[in-house]
Amino acid sequence: MTDEDNNHPRPTPRTVSRRRLLGAAGVGGAAGIALGVGGYALADAGGDPAATTGGSGDGAALAGLGADAVPFHGTHQAGIVEPMQSTLHATAFDLTSGTGRPGLVSLMKRWSAAAAAMAEGRTPPGLTDDQVALDAGPSSLTVTFGFGAPVFTKAGLTAQLPSQLTPLPPFPEDQLDRARSDGDLWVQVCADDPLVAYHAMRTLQRLAVGQAAPRWQTTGFSRAPGATREPMTGRNLMGQIDGTNNPKPGSAGFDATVFVPANATAATAAGQPSWMAGGSYAVFRRIRMLLDTWDQQSLDVQQRTIGRRKDNGAPLSGGPGSSETTTVDLESFDPDGSLAIPGDAHIRVAAAASNQGAAMLRRGYSYHDGYRPDGAPDAGLLFVAFQADPMTGFVPVQRKLARGDALSRFLVHESSGLYAVPGGASPDGYVGQALLES
Amino acid sequence: MTDEDNNHPRPTPRTVSRRRLLGAAGVGGAAGIALGVGGYALADAGGDPAATTGGSGDGAALAGLGADAVPFHGTHQAGIVEPMQSTLHATAFDLTSGTGRPGLVSLMKRWSAAAAAMAEGRTPPGLTDDQVALDAGPSSLTVTFGFGAPVFTKAGLTAQLPSQLTPLPPFPEDQLDRARSDGDLWVQVCADDPLVAYHAMRTLQRLAVGQAAPRWQTTGFSRAPGATREPMTGRNLMGQIDGTNNPKPGSAGFDATVFVPANATAATAAGQPSWMAGGSYAVFRRIRMLLDTWDQQSLDVQQRTIGRRKDNGAPLSGGPGSSETTTVDLESFDPDGSLAIPGDAHIRVAAAASNQGAAMLRRGYSYHDGYRPDGAPDAGLLFVAFQADPMTGFVPVQRKLARGDALSRFLVHESSGLYAVPGGASPDGYVGQALLES
Repeated sequence: MTDEDNNHPRPTPRTVSRRRLLGAAGVGGAAGIALGVGGYALADAGGDPAATTGGSGDGAALAGLGADAVPFHGTHQAGIVEPMQSTLHATAFDLTSGTGRPGLVSLMKRWSAAAAAMAEGRTPPGLTDDQVALDAGPSSLTVTFGFGAPVFTKAGLTAQLPSQLTPLPPFPEDQLDRARSDGDLWVQVCADDPLVAYHAMRTLQRLAVGQAAPRWQTTGFSRAPGATREPMTGRNLMGQIDGTNNPKPGSAGFDATVFVPANATAATAAGQPSWMAGGSYAVFRRIRMLLDTWDQQSLDVQQRTIGRRKDNGAPLSGGPGSSETTTVDLESFDPDGSLAIPGDAHIRVAAAASNQGAAMLRRGYSYHDGYRPDGAPDAGLLFVAFQADPMTGFVPVQRKLARGDALSRFLVHESSGLYAVPGGASPDGYVGQALLES
Repeated sequence: MTDEDNNHPRPTPRTVSRRRLLGAAGVGGAAGIALGVGGYALADAGGDPAATTGGSGDGAALAGLGADAVPFHGTHQAGIVEPMQSTLHATAFDLTSGTGRPGLVSLMKRWSAAAAAMAEGRTPPGLTDDQVALDAGPSSLTVTFGFGAPVFTKAGLTAQLPSQLTPLPPFPEDQLDRARSDGDLWVQVCADDPLVAYHAMRTLQRLAVGQAAPRWQTTGFSRAPGATREPMTGRNLMGQIDGTNNPKPGSAGFDATVFVPANATAATAAGQPSWMAGGSYAVFRRIRMLLDTWDQQSLDVQQRTIGRRKDNGAPLSGGPGSSETTTVDLESFDPDGSLAIPGDAHIRVAAAASNQGAAMLRRGYSYHDGYRPDGAPDAGLLFVAFQADPMTGFVPVQRKLARGDALSRFLVHESSGLYAVPGGASPDGYVGQALLES
């Protein structure tokens, strides 16, 4: 599950707010992913250094990468439809003993206020001495909060537990480490500057002291902005272009695939809790790649495992002149009568066409945590997928992959988590408010 | 030892080779750090995508960040005087059993050839199926090789062991984990794109199989290019501007501080082995910051611990209108008669003026490897310092810091390594040649 449907092309130029750019480009569906649809003001801190720093007074202009801002407030949480940033910090927190619903409300209020401030490049409320990212600018920071199933019990919210949070079924090739899986709360921090990402997560962790503590944390990376030929999709650690067929924001069915309806009545009609209106469900998995084994395969075997050329990402069904964006033809045959895209090729097994239309928005990052005792890299994919319902998104796809995907013998699923990601907050609210005040 | 003397300001614009830019700016001393002095050609791959990718054929122009190239060949190794890139991978390798001098020669030849190719954005020789960074461009990749003391015994080179590689003395506050310290070989990979950095180290590790294997690995980060107000010096995880007084390439005494004389006769006269001509010595330390304790201090205590203002880095001796670049006045007194920069302030204790002129070039990165069981970040500084002689550079400074530095109570030194970094290779040679063919 490492090749399809990752990364959006980055918008350029990058000196304007990304959400503004998405809006200007006409991207955005009925549920309102784009500028203005949610009714909240945009933050674009590029022109006013003082606004981005709380007035550090150094006077130099902040421009380019650092000035890009993604508003925290909106119909949906940030960090889902936006182009991927270069750094990911994902952390699960467990509530500390004694933290019930009031403590969780207090935490989500503080977290939301801090995330909103940092997304504008401001120092979080009450932390004026905290100057780690003082002169950084927003750097496209997004913070995304999710709720794991156990928190509903701990906070006395079992009546609000979505059926969609039913634990993922076991898959044949899982080798899950529960200590690095699950968790009461999930926080995804992404930014284009590593210090900004570090600082945001550190700030949230500090603000949680006494109410929640990290259960696990992991860091991932994507391409640096401007480092590759845009709008080429990124490569994973296997060298494969990864994410070509990811659903595109604004395309037909995108919102229905990724988001619970933003209207509470419509959400209920769709079999979702009303408090999840505008929300999504995140599947997070640490998938180690057996890179030593992979690198021993010939280029031909690698390409037939994926179903795409390694150099330019063109489907093996494409023929001369094809490219990454050439439509995949699962019915194409080679002259010798064999399937151009083998029967067990990853893109065949993972394709929505092979899974009754199941699809999800993937936003995965690479990771590398050193080398294992055998000398192989402890490295692979931090799989992140958003969908309106994991039971029709991730689960059927992964079930099929685990049985028939040629790629699966090069992968080990080491951790797994499933989280309810509520809709976005308004400027006078906080993430999870509809749940916690229900 | 976390505040002074890190980071050079980044040159702008970044669409030309950095070394070219350093040359154009007139930086460069007698030993030849800059363009052309070493007599080798520059690589600037920006204008020729085919040259940077081995001909991937996608045809899109590679520009900006990804096109920046730092030549591998030269009088000195790359990765010492160049502006810091955003990602560091540092890995120590131990020779595998049975690898003697011939195996080490073979390895250093392969490593040098691969590093030279990757620094130009080309696929390493013999690895044409390796396309992990195919469309990335050089992204200012530098690879720096060092030799630890044990390798001299294993490779039958004890007669060539520099006295400068005498193990560092123990310092009172060391809590060193030997498994994460030392090593036969040290490889520092830096790049402005995380995938490029990962790929370069992974490639070197693959090329070492059978002759050397990773002993430890660690990853660090600095600011993303363009993410901050240039040319402001970066901040460390304590929030302090870090690196203001780092020696500047081209300044008086810079070469003598950082490099062994590039002429073999002069090197010998300076008490160095002739094979170290043009080389340097790297001290690498993992210094964990006790950030929970630090963050509990008032701003005033933090500033007096360092000796500088936190917001803009101005020395506490500076007065109104002072800035990061205001000269530190260690003799300045406050109106109440106390020293403006307290007696145990880090910048006083670390200052060259307090250490008989001892100085080194620091090139440290931040790291964050998740959270510890007590919830505190496992994070801090990957201290990297280059000097012509650690016994007159790092050692006296650290000895003094360990005794009198107010900052030391917020730091734990968890690992340490000392490596001889030979001079750079010529295009028909390899790093370490003068040693290994002596």
